[in-house]
Amino acid sequence: MTFDAMWSAIEPIGRDAASGGYRRFAWTRADSDLREWFAGECATRGLDLTVDRAGNQWGWWGDPDAAVRAGRPGVVIGSHLDSVPDGGAFDGPLGVVSALATVDALRNNGFVPARPIGVVNFADEEGARFGIACAGSRIITGQLTADRARGLTDGDGVSLAEALSRAGGSPDALGVDTETLRRVGCFVELHVEQGRAMVDTGDPVAIGTGLWPHGRWRIDFPGEANHAGTTRLADRHDAMIGYAHTVLATRSAAEGRGCLATIGKVQVRPGGVNAIASAVTGWLDARGADEAAVLDAVSEIAAVAADHGATMRRESWTPPTSFDAALADRLQGVLGPSVPRLGTGAGHDAGILAVHGVPTAMLFVRNPTGVSHSPAEFAERDDCLAGVAALTAVTGDLAS
Amino acid sequence: MTFDAMWSAIEPIGRDAASGGYRRFAWTRADSDLREWFAGECATRGLDLTVDRAGNQWGWWGDPDAAVRAGRPGVVIGSHLDSVPDGGAFDGPLGVVSALATVDALRNNGFVPARPIGVVNFADEEGARFGIACAGSRIITGQLTADRARGLTDGDGVSLAEALSRAGGSPDALGVDTETLRRVGCFVELHVEQGRAMVDTGDPVAIGTGLWPHGRWRIDFPGEANHAGTTRLADRHDAMIGYAHTVLATRSAAEGRGCLATIGKVQVRPGGVNAIASAVTGWLDARGADEAAVLDAVSEIAAVAADHGATMRRESWTPPTSFDAALADRLQGVLGPSVPRLGTGAGHDAGILAVHGVPTAMLFVRNPTGVSHSPAEFAERDDCLAGVAALTAVTGDLAS
Repeated sequence: MTFDAMWSAIEPIGRDAASGGYRRFAWTRADSDLREWFAGECATRGLDLTVDRAGNQWGWWGDPDAAVRAGRPGVVIGSHLDSVPDGGAFDGPLGVVSALATVDALRNNGFVPARPIGVVNFADEEGARFGIACAGSRIITGQLTADRARGLTDGDGVSLAEALSRAGGSPDALGVDTETLRRVGCFVELHVEQGRAMVDTGDPVAIGTGLWPHGRWRIDFPGEANHAGTTRLADRHDAMIGYAHTVLATRSAAEGRGCLATIGKVQVRPGGVNAIASAVTGWLDARGADEAAVLDAVSEIAAVAADHGATMRRESWTPPTSFDAALADRLQGVLGPSVPRLGTGAGHDAGILAVHGVPTAMLFVRNPTGVSHSPAEFAERDDCLAGVAALTAVTGDLAS
Repeated sequence: MTFDAMWSAIEPIGRDAASGGYRRFAWTRADSDLREWFAGECATRGLDLTVDRAGNQWGWWGDPDAAVRAGRPGVVIGSHLDSVPDGGAFDGPLGVVSALATVDALRNNGFVPARPIGVVNFADEEGARFGIACAGSRIITGQLTADRARGLTDGDGVSLAEALSRAGGSPDALGVDTETLRRVGCFVELHVEQGRAMVDTGDPVAIGTGLWPHGRWRIDFPGEANHAGTTRLADRHDAMIGYAHTVLATRSAAEGRGCLATIGKVQVRPGGVNAIASAVTGWLDARGADEAAVLDAVSEIAAVAADHGATMRRESWTPPTSFDAALADRLQGVLGPSVPRLGTGAGHDAGILAVHGVPTAMLFVRNPTGVSHSPAEFAERDDCLAGVAALTAVTGDLAS
C-alpha cells in the first residue's frame, strides 16, 4: 500500500463524527482495530510480528535475534497509533505510516539491509485513558512497574489489567522485556512537529535534539456538599473556589518563568447545578526548557493550592532528555547541514528509550499551524512525503 | 407500615456505596423502584393510584372527581422521591413518607374526610438528569412545554422522551393536565429545611411563606484545542482561564449583594491532561430574597464571562413566589401562634403549583446542620415525627 492508501485506511478508525477528532484510547475497540491493521500491514510486507510484554507491536525485516548474537542489533523506526481525546490524525500515526512507507521505499530501491529493520507501534503512548504517558515503553524499560501499571484505572474505574485482558492481552505478562530491548540497536521516531518553529525556518523536516523536562500533578481540593440555594456564603466550603484560584495561579506562575503550565482536566463532585462542590480534582501539566524554572513554577502553584486546603501529588516527572549526539550527527550527515535541530515540550517513546540508554533520534515534520492534540492538527502531504524520504535515507544509512 | 418501616424500605434504593449519597435520577432504575414502592404503599392503603400526563403519581383517599363536581376539590399532600447527585435521604422522601404516615394517623384517629385526600409523588423534581427542576409539575401546569421537555437530554445524550419511554412512560402524552389539576383544592408540601434557621429559633416545625426568586444559566467559554506541552502561552486560547475568572466573579458578585450565586457543575473539552481546553461550560445557580439584587449579580457575572468571549444563556428563572396567605394563616391557627414562618432559597413543586394559582403551603422540619443536597443531610427522628403530627393536624383540618 502507498502512503496515501495507508493514510486512508486508518482515517475513519476511532474518529468522532461530531468533533472530527480521534478517540483512539489504549485497549479500546478503536485501538484493537488499529493494532489489527498494523499486524496486517506487517504480514503484507512479510515482516515478522512480535508483541512484547507490554503489548507493543514490532514488525521485523530480518532476524533480530541473529543480529543480537552477531553484535549488530536492529534499526527500529515507528511511533504510536493511539490518541488524546479528540486528537488529530498525525500525532503518532504519521510516524508509523512513514516507517512502513520507508520499508517499501527501501525495497523499491533494491536495498538489502546489513542489519535488521524493525517497525514499532508503541501501545498507550498518550496515557489518555490511564493517566500515564508512554506506558508501553515505560513498562518494558522498567520505568513503570508492572504492579503500578496493572492497578491504573480509567474514568469508569476499569483497571489497565482488566482493559488489557478484555482486549486479549496478558496483564500477568507485563514487565521489563530485555529480550525485546536488546534487539533495538537504535531507534528513530518520526513525528509531526507540535509547535511553529519550522514555519519560521522554512524547513519541511528537522532533527530532534531532546525533550524538555515535563510532569503531571493531581490536585485535590476539599469542600463540603451543600445546597447552593440555601447555604449562606459565609457557611460554605466550596471546592470550586480554590480550584479557580489555582487555575489562574497556574497561568501566572508559568508566565513569570518562561515555561508552560496548564490545567486542562477537571472533575467535580457531586456536579449538580444546585449543589456546592464537595470535591474538585484538577490535573496540572508543566514543562519548559529550564528544569529549575518548571519546578519553581510548580512550587508556586502548589502554594496557592495549599492555601485552599488542597493536596497535590506528582503523577509523573521526566527530567530533560537529550537524544544521542553521535546519532544526531549521523542523521545530519545524511540529510545535509541545512536541516535544523529542535527540542520539544512533548513527551515521546523516543525519550523513554533514550533514558534507558538506547541510541535514539527523532525527525520532525513541519506543522503549518503549530496545532496538535486537536482535530485541527495538520501537516501538508508534501511535507509528510519529505519526512518519508528523510526517514528512508536515514534508515538506509543506519542499516547498511 | 409505620414511618420507620417505610423509611427503612426505601433507604437502600439508589444509594451509592462509596459516597453514601443517593443517585435517584428521573426515569432510571432507582426511580422506577421508588415509583413501584410508592404504588405498593398506595395499594396497601386502598388509595386509588392515578398517573398524570407528566408521570406524577397521585394516590387518592376518596373520589377526587366527585369532589370536583361537588365544588370541594381535594387536599393534596406529598413531595418527590428523586435526588440530586449524591443527595441526602430527606430532601423529597421525607414529604412523601410523612404524607403516607398522615393518612395512617388520620385513619387510626377514626377520621372521616369530608374532602378527598391525595398523596402525590412528583416526578423529576431535582432536574438532576435533564437540567430542569420541577419538571413534573412544570409540565402539567404548562410552565415547561411538552416539546421542550421531550427534547431535553442527559449527560449521555439520552432525551427525556427516550428515557421516559424506556421507563414505560408515554412521551406523547406529556402536556398540560387540567383533569389532574382541578382535583387539587389545595397542596401542602412537607420538606426538610435546607438552612439552619430553625436551629436558631428552636422549633421542630415551621410554616413556609414562599420561595426566593431563583434561576439557572449556562455559560459557554470558547477556546482552541492545542497541545499543553508545546503551545506558547501567548498563542493560547484556553477556555479554562475565562471559566476560572468567572467562578471567582460569581462569588464576589453574590457577596457584594447579599444573595447566593454558585457554579457547581462544569464540563471541559477535550478534557485531556496535556490538552488545552477548547471549550468549557459552567452552570450558574443564583438566588436571593431580593429579586433585583439577584439579577444585578447575574449581570455582573455575565459581564466578566463576556470579557472572556463567553456566551450566557438562561435555562430557567422563577420569580419570587408567595404561598397562599389565607392558607398559611389557617395552618398557623391549627399549629399555634408560636410556630415560625420561613422563606427558602430552594425551589419546590409547591412553588410551581402556587404560580399556577393553586392555594399552596409548606411545612419545614428542622435541619440540625443546615446541610442538604449531600449525604450528610439529616433530621432527627423526633423532629420528623413532629412533622408528621403537624401534617396530620393540618390535613385533618383542611379535609374536614
